[in-house]
Amino acid sequence: MTFVLAIDAMGGDLGVSVVIPGAELALKKTQVKDLRFLLYGDAPTIQKALKDTPLLNACSEVIHTDVIVTNYTKPAVAVRSGRKSNLGMAISAVAEGRAHAVISAGNTGAYMALSKIILKTLDGINRPAIPAVMPTTNPRGTIVLDLGANIECSPTNLVQFALMGEAFAAKTFNIERPTVGLLNVGSEEVKGHAGVQEAFQMLRQITDFNFHGFVEGNDIMAGTTDVVVTDGFSGNVTLKAIEGTSRFVQRLLQESISSSWRGKLGYLIAKPAFDRIKQTTDARFYNGAVFLGLRHIAVKSHGGTDAIGFANAVNVAINMVKNNFIDSVQSRLRLLQSQQQAKTDTINSESAANPEPDTAPESKN
Amino acid sequence: MTFVLAIDAMGGDLGVSVVIPGAELALKKTQVKDLRFLLYGDAPTIQKALKDTPLLNACSEVIHTDVIVTNYTKPAVAVRSGRKSNLGMAISAVAEGRAHAVISAGNTGAYMALSKIILKTLDGINRPAIPAVMPTTNPRGTIVLDLGANIECSPTNLVQFALMGEAFAAKTFNIERPTVGLLNVGSEEVKGHAGVQEAFQMLRQITDFNFHGFVEGNDIMAGTTDVVVTDGFSGNVTLKAIEGTSRFVQRLLQESISSSWRGKLGYLIAKPAFDRIKQTTDARFYNGAVFLGLRHIAVKSHGGTDAIGFANAVNVAINMVKNNFIDSVQSRLRLLQSQQQAKTDTINSESAANPEPDTAPESKN
Repeated sequence: MTFVLAIDAMGGDLGVSVVIPGAELALKKTQVKDLRFLLYGDAPTIQKALKDTPLLNACSEVIHTDVIVTNYTKPAVAVRSGRKSNLGMAISAVAEGRAHAVISAGNTGAYMALSKIILKTLDGINRPAIPAVMPTTNPRGTIVLDLGANIECSPTNLVQFALMGEAFAAKTFNIERPTVGLLNVGSEEVKGHAGVQEAFQMLRQITDFNFHGFVEGNDIMAGTTDVVVTDGFSGNVTLKAIEGTSRFVQRLLQESISSSWRGKLGYLIAKPAFDRIKQTTDARFYNGAVFLGLRHIAVKSHGGTDAIGFANAVNVAINMVKNNFIDSVQSRLRLLQSQQQAKTDTINSESAANPEPDTAPESKN
Repeated sequence: MTFVLAIDAMGGDLGVSVVIPGAELALKKTQVKDLRFLLYGDAPTIQKALKDTPLLNACSEVIHTDVIVTNYTKPAVAVRSGRKSNLGMAISAVAEGRAHAVISAGNTGAYMALSKIILKTLDGINRPAIPAVMPTTNPRGTIVLDLGANIECSPTNLVQFALMGEAFAAKTFNIERPTVGLLNVGSEEVKGHAGVQEAFQMLRQITDFNFHGFVEGNDIMAGTTDVVVTDGFSGNVTLKAIEGTSRFVQRLLQESISSSWRGKLGYLIAKPAFDRIKQTTDARFYNGAVFLGLRHIAVKSHGGTDAIGFANAVNVAINMVKNNFIDSVQSRLRLLQSQQQAKTDTINSESAANPEPDTAPESKN
């Protein structure tokens, strides 16, 4: 089978100078035999960059777009006039069956807005979310979502993220019933704003669903649950704070060690271990997040990543195509949604028989 | 001068078993000659704990309260019926001039709500915020607020936090014009929800104020600005995620090193450096956050800390009393507020002379 990937060649902080070498690197490393790329953006710029990447050049088609979506394009503007852009055309290639997945390192808001319109969401999902598998105390890692696709979220959005996150974890970790926690400022039920409170009440009504309750910021790295659900604002600042802290502690440790002869000697001896940890916590190797909840595969690369990071994002897309990702998530999601519905129906009929106003918060959904 | 500290003896996850040894430890370490404690809560419980802390016992007065505020008391309930509680009575001792500062490891929401009512806020401040000085790449550290006092914030709240944070940094770091960043999902002006957008526009109008603009999660540890401002929900989950990540990376590194003989040898040689870093990033040594924006000193200790951590919170309170903290912050705040006001007046008169609808976003303030 031929795999076709649609790439926004101009996206990200450094555009073609990262995207093109990144795609070349992915091509070198993949075990997929017949891989082809559709590269969208300013054709002369892309073609110039392709001169240094002969492998990629040999299996790519460049599609010129006059409109370019940049990091500064507002999502609303992208929706109005971005369909014929680098980003919009790459997404459309997937919607129209000419590619199996789309990858961009560009403007998250514009990418999400265009993807939602062009690729459509799965049944029962209003808004897609961005998950990441983070290296934590849990050997499998921990899935955190949303990482920035939805800056403001309703309780219903959070519940849908929880269901999608559970389905994503079941597929990614190959486990039956992943545990799910809702991020909050405390683990007690009374804590937090009305939005997380309401989502909490809705989530604990779902049968055959491992809802752990509220978790706190430190629970992410402690690997307390397989999935941590939060809104896109908190998720984004938390993820970036975690990345920054990991770098900070490693650098501090190296500096602290290098400040004495004894420490320097110890460091030289233990250097392989230092290198190993650096790799474990290197954000580039976790780069590439799917927009979870769409009917097709759209992968977002970090805008500031390098070629190694972008290659990893390409690889994430390839694996999702190979593993039939969308179908698996959709079927797990249908099962969870039917359980949620069944429970809601039971409660509604119970409360009709014995009406109490506080027994049916689900009806707000 | 006699320093009197009012202590909520029952607060925190472990109550008297942490608070009482913590206060004893603070007493042993302080250079203040005449320190006295007022201990509020269930008298028999406190008196039993005091048997193991003779120094503290000798300079304490126990005040029995029938009502006890716990971690599970809702702030609204605390406000209605908590005035005569461990927490309410300790706070009142400061308001009524019987103590210089109050310290509690209890329920943040209840503590904040009662403090705001009993101690009152400074001029021009609607809601107090919790700041923390975090160890970052900036050798002075970085002040982050709000860490959980205000789960939902208006743009005006964020602007007030920025002014208070700047005044706090100026006093704490002894610098003239600290830089201030507003936490967001991206550094571009178009990013984020309406709340941070509006606060951004208001902050950049203030003269003689070092507003850096938006910063991202990784900027906290990078020490990009002296102060990072955010709402209490994001601030709380981010702080706890940072603490968790710091612990995770250190443990991962130790495990990784211990897995080979070569690494173990290196670790033994470099152990003093490891110990030093552990201390630098040990959250207990940064425990004790003031409720910034009140007319008196109220210090919040982390609920899950140990005696060392609680002692540090007591020490924070002692230093603030010694350094005349409230007066310094109030005078710096008045200066900033007068500049903000002057600028708003100028803009209003300019826009009256030459009216353009988009020149007066400050009028929403």
